[in-house]
Amino acid sequence: MNYSSQQLSLFTQQVFKKCGMNSDDALQAAAVLIAADLRGIDSHGVARLSGYVRLFEAKRANMNANHKIIHETPSTATVDADEGLGLVVAPKAMEIAIEKAKQVGTGWVAIQNSNHFGIASYHAMKALPHDMIGIAMTNASPLVAPTFSKQRMLGTNPICYAFPTSKHLPIVIDMATSAAANGKLEIAQRTGKSIPNNWVQTKEGNESMNANELSNGGSLLPLGGHKGYGLASIVDILCGVLSGANYGPWVPPFVSFLNPLPNLPGNGIGHFLGAMRIDAFRPAEEFKNNMDNWIDSFKNAARIDENQTVIIPGEPEYFLEMERIKNGIPLNEKVILDLQELAHKFNLSL
Amino acid sequence: MNYSSQQLSLFTQQVFKKCGMNSDDALQAAAVLIAADLRGIDSHGVARLSGYVRLFEAKRANMNANHKIIHETPSTATVDADEGLGLVVAPKAMEIAIEKAKQVGTGWVAIQNSNHFGIASYHAMKALPHDMIGIAMTNASPLVAPTFSKQRMLGTNPICYAFPTSKHLPIVIDMATSAAANGKLEIAQRTGKSIPNNWVQTKEGNESMNANELSNGGSLLPLGGHKGYGLASIVDILCGVLSGANYGPWVPPFVSFLNPLPNLPGNGIGHFLGAMRIDAFRPAEEFKNNMDNWIDSFKNAARIDENQTVIIPGEPEYFLEMERIKNGIPLNEKVILDLQELAHKFNLSL
Repeated sequence: MNYSSQQLSLFTQQVFKKCGMNSDDALQAAAVLIAADLRGIDSHGVARLSGYVRLFEAKRANMNANHKIIHETPSTATVDADEGLGLVVAPKAMEIAIEKAKQVGTGWVAIQNSNHFGIASYHAMKALPHDMIGIAMTNASPLVAPTFSKQRMLGTNPICYAFPTSKHLPIVIDMATSAAANGKLEIAQRTGKSIPNNWVQTKEGNESMNANELSNGGSLLPLGGHKGYGLASIVDILCGVLSGANYGPWVPPFVSFLNPLPNLPGNGIGHFLGAMRIDAFRPAEEFKNNMDNWIDSFKNAARIDENQTVIIPGEPEYFLEMERIKNGIPLNEKVILDLQELAHKFNLSL
Repeated sequence: MNYSSQQLSLFTQQVFKKCGMNSDDALQAAAVLIAADLRGIDSHGVARLSGYVRLFEAKRANMNANHKIIHETPSTATVDADEGLGLVVAPKAMEIAIEKAKQVGTGWVAIQNSNHFGIASYHAMKALPHDMIGIAMTNASPLVAPTFSKQRMLGTNPICYAFPTSKHLPIVIDMATSAAANGKLEIAQRTGKSIPNNWVQTKEGNESMNANELSNGGSLLPLGGHKGYGLASIVDILCGVLSGANYGPWVPPFVSFLNPLPNLPGNGIGHFLGAMRIDAFRPAEEFKNNMDNWIDSFKNAARIDENQTVIIPGEPEYFLEMERIKNGIPLNEKVILDLQELAHKFNLSL
């Protein structure tokens, strides 16, 4: 069944307001979630709304958070998110990064004491209208085992870079550093299909093609083996250690039924955001024209199958967004039930 | 046969000086090559010396280069390497990044008109003694095909991050964004072994386990499929498009017997370097103590095989370096012949 983005946004805002969030923050939080649904990253959209509510009810998310800058230099800032939602603080922190980039060429913001921020691309893409490159990363609840280990030590820790262009669509590379993102596992779970043998391992560390292996105590595998372990570590250190947030096995779980570990070394989860002004390196028009040329060359690269084009990162998500703005967002039954439960709880209509 | 690092460094310096390089630059270039041999990245060490000489002889590398800053802001600079070797200009550009980080928190340098810079970790690690995070990337001759293409469009485009620590060794993550680096292919070629089926494809784009597939017109595959294509693109855009260097299929080949394509969109190859001062985000001691804690937690993560420890990135290279400083650098026969040829050509003794 399809829902319009307006309808889902309004509902999401109402839910957040029922949890005590002010209107501006609720509008922002909803915008990030709906962007995920529009762009086809369904696991990060309204499917997570009830999860945020449960975190609030467990007193692990502050819906009235006032973030503050706790340290800064001309090109950097460290932000304390006051236990708020990353959905709300990350766009504000991205504004800080953009402002610093306007002043000194680049701006970098490390955020501690936060909760999950939705899709990384929403935040990175905020840099694009300013002719800046946008960067966004976050650490997340441990699900991924480092190479040679069977223990969940790292999150799916996504990296996103957004690059402005001239006539073409911007390039937006947004990827989990695990072999497969949770969303892909969930699709396999729903369809009952087996998965490639490099996505998960059993709790003993053996190969598995079972999409439900995580519920048996298994773990996700890093992208391409030890290199993905390295990439996830970079994200964890920048988001967690540099900001003063938690890191590694201590990153608090998103699901409210799991408690954070005792003796946490930091505060909440962490994000790392950046904005680089193009004309801090070369004139923006030159860069953007060369980006178009880059894209043209990749679109025209020799194909293996004449019917399968070479994909430019960000294009499929953009086209899906256009289609879903027009035809609505398809939600699966489980998500609809979840939203209906929220509607019932808060006396709202979906 | 083992050679001492001093002996190889002296020889390398003499060769570069015979090509007209001044003593300081020759010392620097040799230091980067020998660091690769010491750290076990044998493909990037003195094995490449004759390649640099051939580029010089083909008038594609300037051994008397004077790099200059062609654009800058408080946190950024764009450097024209004057067709010099990346081995020489990258350490100088890293100094610029470090100086800017001292002033405004972070420093970022994009370099155009360069040639290959050796191992990325050498450059990133220059930030460590300053209590800074070091970042180094470079684009490189096209060998990797983007997803759904059979055309070589991207280099092995490495990414390196170096993080300072307190009592433990620094974490140094240095990885090609292709499934396998050239060095690993070369080892398989020498030993005649077959390779995993996700390293290379045939010139038609079919699966292959043949380590010699590149000489049949095949291409390398990106790390973990389309995500590696995304990562290699990030590196190519930051190093090539942002700096004004060449990018994608236009990156000039390292081997002198292949000519650059006509109508190049930029100058030479490109690098991208960064330095982030830790205390621009939080006190350096706090960060470094938490890095130690991060490392301890990963070292103690549950093992799959009790005899196989979880590896901390940078540790194996460090221990190999200590061993090779003591016992010398083992060179294979082909590399020794190559160096002997250089010795003969320049009337030097190896």
